[in-house]
Amino acid sequence: MPTPTNDVFLRALRREPTPYTPVWLMRQAGRYLPEYNATRARAGSFLALAKSPSLATEVTLQPLARFPLDAAILFSDILTVPDAMGLGLYFAGGEGPRFERTTADEAAIAKLEVPDMAKLSYVFDAVAEIKRALAGRLPLIGFSGSPFTLACYMIEGAGSADFATVRRMVWGRPDLLQRLVAINARAVAAYLNEQIAAGADAVMVFDTWGGLLSAAAYRSFSLAPMREVLAALAPAPDGRRVPTIVFTKGGGQWLDDLAATGASCVGLDWTVDIADARRRVGSRVALQGNLDPLVLLTSPEVVRRETAAIVRAAGPAPGHIFNLGHGIVPGTPPENVAALVEAVHSESRATRAGA
Amino acid sequence: MPTPTNDVFLRALRREPTPYTPVWLMRQAGRYLPEYNATRARAGSFLALAKSPSLATEVTLQPLARFPLDAAILFSDILTVPDAMGLGLYFAGGEGPRFERTTADEAAIAKLEVPDMAKLSYVFDAVAEIKRALAGRLPLIGFSGSPFTLACYMIEGAGSADFATVRRMVWGRPDLLQRLVAINARAVAAYLNEQIAAGADAVMVFDTWGGLLSAAAYRSFSLAPMREVLAALAPAPDGRRVPTIVFTKGGGQWLDDLAATGASCVGLDWTVDIADARRRVGSRVALQGNLDPLVLLTSPEVVRRETAAIVRAAGPAPGHIFNLGHGIVPGTPPENVAALVEAVHSESRATRAGA
Repeated sequence: MPTPTNDVFLRALRREPTPYTPVWLMRQAGRYLPEYNATRARAGSFLALAKSPSLATEVTLQPLARFPLDAAILFSDILTVPDAMGLGLYFAGGEGPRFERTTADEAAIAKLEVPDMAKLSYVFDAVAEIKRALAGRLPLIGFSGSPFTLACYMIEGAGSADFATVRRMVWGRPDLLQRLVAINARAVAAYLNEQIAAGADAVMVFDTWGGLLSAAAYRSFSLAPMREVLAALAPAPDGRRVPTIVFTKGGGQWLDDLAATGASCVGLDWTVDIADARRRVGSRVALQGNLDPLVLLTSPEVVRRETAAIVRAAGPAPGHIFNLGHGIVPGTPPENVAALVEAVHSESRATRAGA
Repeated sequence: MPTPTNDVFLRALRREPTPYTPVWLMRQAGRYLPEYNATRARAGSFLALAKSPSLATEVTLQPLARFPLDAAILFSDILTVPDAMGLGLYFAGGEGPRFERTTADEAAIAKLEVPDMAKLSYVFDAVAEIKRALAGRLPLIGFSGSPFTLACYMIEGAGSADFATVRRMVWGRPDLLQRLVAINARAVAAYLNEQIAAGADAVMVFDTWGGLLSAAAYRSFSLAPMREVLAALAPAPDGRRVPTIVFTKGGGQWLDDLAATGASCVGLDWTVDIADARRRVGSRVALQGNLDPLVLLTSPEVVRRETAAIVRAAGPAPGHIFNLGHGIVPGTPPENVAALVEAVHSESRATRAGA
């Protein structure tokens, strides 16, 4: 597999010097883009879009045609794995993901198995098709929800303000939750390995809800299974280790733990001071982040100012990948995204020239 | 004003040795108690209850009759101050607080003033009445929402999953938000000073939403105004300094900043490792917290185990006040609260004896 023409993202993940800071954005293919909405309308639904390799390829490429981003990310959902376990993923009008069946008691968890990866072939086909379309121009990021974050939706059946049923299980039935995240860890590892086999150049684990746990519960139910996933990842078809990114939203207190998972890079949400994060983790890992996505709802001028502030705070040491602290929100003006990407590149080039 | 008969809570706030760890619980007077629900039904609504000094006194005392708690806390709401500013606080069936009018633009914020404290006399009357009823047996905690948390509800008009309008103002109109929190800081200081004058033995500032800000925005819009509030507090009628507690939910990354506000005590939510927190803040402040309130939905056995774990993790140094990491949730069995209070007292006495 040839090295992508633009390998700045992969070099930053390995903490090698780069001429500028690479940038990609969580949900860079999404509802803020009119062309995405047109494709989605054609598909009929979000899930139909995600389950069609050719349409997933089409929307994956859309932001790359508009902005000089440094990586593509597979268009998919973080909850494909429990869907393949038979839980029945669906999206009820603008309300976020839901499952038809929950996995919240002993009987349901006992029946749970690592799904046949053939049920997820639409994802691996999309990875392969996107890779062909990229033709080596840019690296492609594969991803999954974290074992704990999958468990949150599997237990509650939907998103929640406080995931009370999950937290109750943490304290009342830790054995059940342990069994659930262990199965999820094996499933996520198999899933990411298939994405790697299909050509993903890097993989990211999204731990959206680990931040709602106590420190001890976080280590047991979110961090440890993520470490198992990372340890079980296979090399790429060319034999090289595939770089990895772990991201716990609300995990700013646990950056040292995240930096010790074996991941190449730790994602930071917008609450973290990135200069402080760099001091804490030293040169052990790359850091990804961390602009508040709401900045993109202001003006190009404010976007440029706040973007430059993060590039400067991240410092001159290799290993910063610019991103938001969470996904792009609908309603973001595309011209503000353009201003962001331009500011990351120009500010980081200027910083390197001046350093 | 005489020192309360049980002054263990006040001594712990001053980091003086105590024979055991004092305990009180956020929302200790609330919907998990049948007697509270009876009084509320009699009042007709939550607000009618909060606005009646005699009924507020009645419910404040209810948990003290059941459990050997070490402090009483005024029964009220964190949003009384914006209500007195004319925003029209109301509660729509089980949905949390709402305001009839928002304060989200230049014109609305320009008109805003520190309210006449006479509009809040029902609160100060309740403080005085509770103090009379307590007759010096236990200390009474007064409280307010933080300037930033009040601003969150004033801007959005209600709670929110992500407070997007607030975060957009942080980046797009920081000048407006600054003006809003500055007015709130003066209002909260005046409000707490009236509670102190009426007899509150300690006061707490609840910063429920500071944790959703970037580190820099947190310092500007949440931490700095809380520091102003604390600096503006008057001494108690007897001339002594009134101990203070600051609590930012989701503020685990900023404990050092919170410990430097001038507060006597920093509240910890359940995500914080209290042993780690003690190492970080040293002996500068007392710490309050931090059991996950969801533990109270399990069994007395689990409650005892997890309570003891926190007492031990907090360590033998003076200055721990046991509490939850957030309020008691409805549906909590009162017998689990009894088990918690008993476990705090017995485990901390045993720890001191063994040390």
